[in-house]
Amino acid sequence: MSILVVGTVAIDSIETPFGKRDNVLGGSATYFSLAASLFNKVHVVATVGEDFPKRYIRLLEDKGIGLEGFHVIKGKTFRWEGKYEYDLNVAHTLKTHLNVLKIFDPVIPPDLRKTDFIFLANTDPELQLKVLEQMRGPSFVACDSMNYWITHKKKPLERLLGKVNLFLLNDSEARQLSGEANLMKAARLIVSKGPKAVIIKKGEHGALYLSKRSCFLTPAYLLETIYDPTGAGDTFAGGMMGFLSRAKRTDEATIKKSIIYGSILASFAVEDFSIKRLARLTMPEVRSRYDIFRRITKY
Amino acid sequence: MSILVVGTVAIDSIETPFGKRDNVLGGSATYFSLAASLFNKVHVVATVGEDFPKRYIRLLEDKGIGLEGFHVIKGKTFRWEGKYEYDLNVAHTLKTHLNVLKIFDPVIPPDLRKTDFIFLANTDPELQLKVLEQMRGPSFVACDSMNYWITHKKKPLERLLGKVNLFLLNDSEARQLSGEANLMKAARLIVSKGPKAVIIKKGEHGALYLSKRSCFLTPAYLLETIYDPTGAGDTFAGGMMGFLSRAKRTDEATIKKSIIYGSILASFAVEDFSIKRLARLTMPEVRSRYDIFRRITKY
Repeated sequence: MSILVVGTVAIDSIETPFGKRDNVLGGSATYFSLAASLFNKVHVVATVGEDFPKRYIRLLEDKGIGLEGFHVIKGKTFRWEGKYEYDLNVAHTLKTHLNVLKIFDPVIPPDLRKTDFIFLANTDPELQLKVLEQMRGPSFVACDSMNYWITHKKKPLERLLGKVNLFLLNDSEARQLSGEANLMKAARLIVSKGPKAVIIKKGEHGALYLSKRSCFLTPAYLLETIYDPTGAGDTFAGGMMGFLSRAKRTDEATIKKSIIYGSILASFAVEDFSIKRLARLTMPEVRSRYDIFRRITKY
Repeated sequence: MSILVVGTVAIDSIETPFGKRDNVLGGSATYFSLAASLFNKVHVVATVGEDFPKRYIRLLEDKGIGLEGFHVIKGKTFRWEGKYEYDLNVAHTLKTHLNVLKIFDPVIPPDLRKTDFIFLANTDPELQLKVLEQMRGPSFVACDSMNYWITHKKKPLERLLGKVNLFLLNDSEARQLSGEANLMKAARLIVSKGPKAVIIKKGEHGALYLSKRSCFLTPAYLLETIYDPTGAGDTFAGGMMGFLSRAKRTDEATIKKSIIYGSILASFAVEDFSIKRLARLTMPEVRSRYDIFRRITKY
């Protein structure tokens, strides 16, 4: 059971209180696929421009990531420039150059249309719907979104939510979408609108999972060193979906365990800039941190 | 094994986004003892003025709380006026009338000097030290403090910390005391300064426990209804110490379980203004919420 992710592959420039990096590899599909590839085969559907460095393509290939749907087209790669203050939960966007993303209209290669696990990374919900229409009965679909689409494309977003197994969003997005300050009420409202389940990510404060049958609360792994929170949410999703697809199960107990794996993967991602930590991460390291996490949360 | 708490019994006026209550029962020793009394015998050492309503004394008596060290003296009761905005983690003090607290110099009744479990609620660390000197070899001492003492009485506070088993404080106090933004580093620094263990309370985001041998992370019970967060920290301490003294054990496994009980007790306390919810709380309700909490945090 392999995984398909449709999202962005980007060139980021990032400043945090701990340093600054220009023109580094970023994008939702990048973080997601690097995390998920530790567990299972991942195929990326994304578009970059001719300026996209070859070494980044080699990096993805070396991780065994399927690039059948990865296209290099005329133009420049999507670029994001962001800054974080000491509150690392909030990203301040300095510049966004959509570039090739302006004409991003993903066509899923025929061989990938039967993929079982689909992650629709944050993008226009109308595009996310179009991707879903191309798929042939996936067994598990998860999606992400952001405040911009909640404000400007609420209707298509709600249509999309009716078709997914899992909707991942952060706490402020959950409050915005539901109009509820209380996260438990927000989660209930969101689940009543369509998705089979929701995960509200609270950054360093952990995550809340709610489905019609079950609820799960977990703290985040408490790190002493955080350099760059970029991509933590997509890495979380990658760890989760990687674990689920490897387990070949999506029952509530497996989902809970996958949330811990997602959280562990994200805890590694933020330990260095860009995808540096993820790129050198190994499965024994993941398992070892999972064991520590179990020990410090068990009672 | 009974419990002794030295702290305040107060008259509060509280405003939250959900309502306003004037002249209601408050104070650290009040919240602590109501929570702990569900588990075990608690003795309160505190001082109030002649204006203190008799019905509040009857309320404490009805809960079986020992009032041998509870004194009504000439003058007025300590009064606190506070307000919370939507961020219920931050209390804004509008007025403080110390009144009889100005001459609070607790003398522990001889019969109580051998009490095993001691909670030194937030007050001048020099007073907390004087209380401790009166005790005869307690088996477990916990204490609380606040930003004011960290700023103005750091030396006596550090002397006190060297003598306690457990220091409870909230996240902003931990950052202030340690000079560390990262909570894990802050916890390590605090433990290196004396207390056998520290609990950093993060309000709705749960708590972090650290001792020299062990670490424990827990989310808070996610409530849909929060009316008044006043006293949540003292209630947490009361639930913890109540559970520990009832268990007659203070090993790490029992402490972890007691932290969950503390968190559960606090989750009830905030469901109504003042001590209203605590005053009508029953042990079956506590056990039932503990079971729910276990279910939603287990993986």
